[in-house]
Amino acid sequence: MAERAGLEVTSVDSFTLDPRLEATSHLVGDWPLCQVRLKDDIRFPWLLLIPRRRELVELTELSSDDYATLNAEILRACHLLQAVARPKKLNVATLGNVVAQMHVHVIGRFASDPAWPDAVWCHGNGPTYTPAERAAMLEQLRAADAA
Amino acid sequence: MAERAGLEVTSVDSFTLDPRLEATSHLVGDWPLCQVRLKDDIRFPWLLLIPRRRELVELTELSSDDYATLNAEILRACHLLQAVARPKKLNVATLGNVVAQMHVHVIGRFASDPAWPDAVWCHGNGPTYTPAERAAMLEQLRAADAA
Repeated sequence: MAERAGLEVTSVDSFTLDPRLEATSHLVGDWPLCQVRLKDDIRFPWLLLIPRRRELVELTELSSDDYATLNAEILRACHLLQAVARPKKLNVATLGNVVAQMHVHVIGRFASDPAWPDAVWCHGNGPTYTPAERAAMLEQLRAADAA
Repeated sequence: MAERAGLEVTSVDSFTLDPRLEATSHLVGDWPLCQVRLKDDIRFPWLLLIPRRRELVELTELSSDDYATLNAEILRACHLLQAVARPKKLNVATLGNVVAQMHVHVIGRFASDPAWPDAVWCHGNGPTYTPAERAAMLEQLRAADAA
């Protein structure tokens, strides 16, 4: 699950991704704290940041170091979506009412997207990426993040 | 707008609250960066944190000091709602698709609330506080924050 587990033994200890998050998103990569995934919904450029910590639900449960790292990674995800998708607006949220495992949504929004200006969660699920579209998007994200 | 403007001259410089935020919420108080307001919706214990910065829209526009302060104040709001309302789950989000001025929602959710487990934005507006209910809630919030 962690590509660089050898360097991050303490970070990946006991982390298990919720199967509902795994089934609806694709791995982009592992950052120091979070696993970064692409939500499988072509309507929006949409990243999920999942801290690789066991049984983590609320922001108030993070250590202060982890909270600082999470916030740095949220900003990194914002910059990444701005570079790749140039959205009109970023939406950043952690809800967790359905899947309790902490996951932060970072979503690029456009006035032309099918849910605008509503929250994306009010518009159900959208079409998923084709394998070719998914590969292209993951490649774009990884390249922009490495730039 | 800032109760302690004399102590925070740089913070309040040129800050103007969007009238749509002002009309739908009540002042709780001013923290070092954010004006804290109670959303006028009795369905949920719901705070808004509005950084007192001019023309601020995206998280990526904050200085690194302000970003750290905002994140500290988000955590303070989480603890405050946990103390006052003991919610099942906290929802934290900054969307801004309708009102662009940056505002962070910190919302206490319950399995018994009328929107659970959906996002609150999918369920329109709820009943507002009566003056007596509002005064009691503001008093509770201010007392818990000062404790």
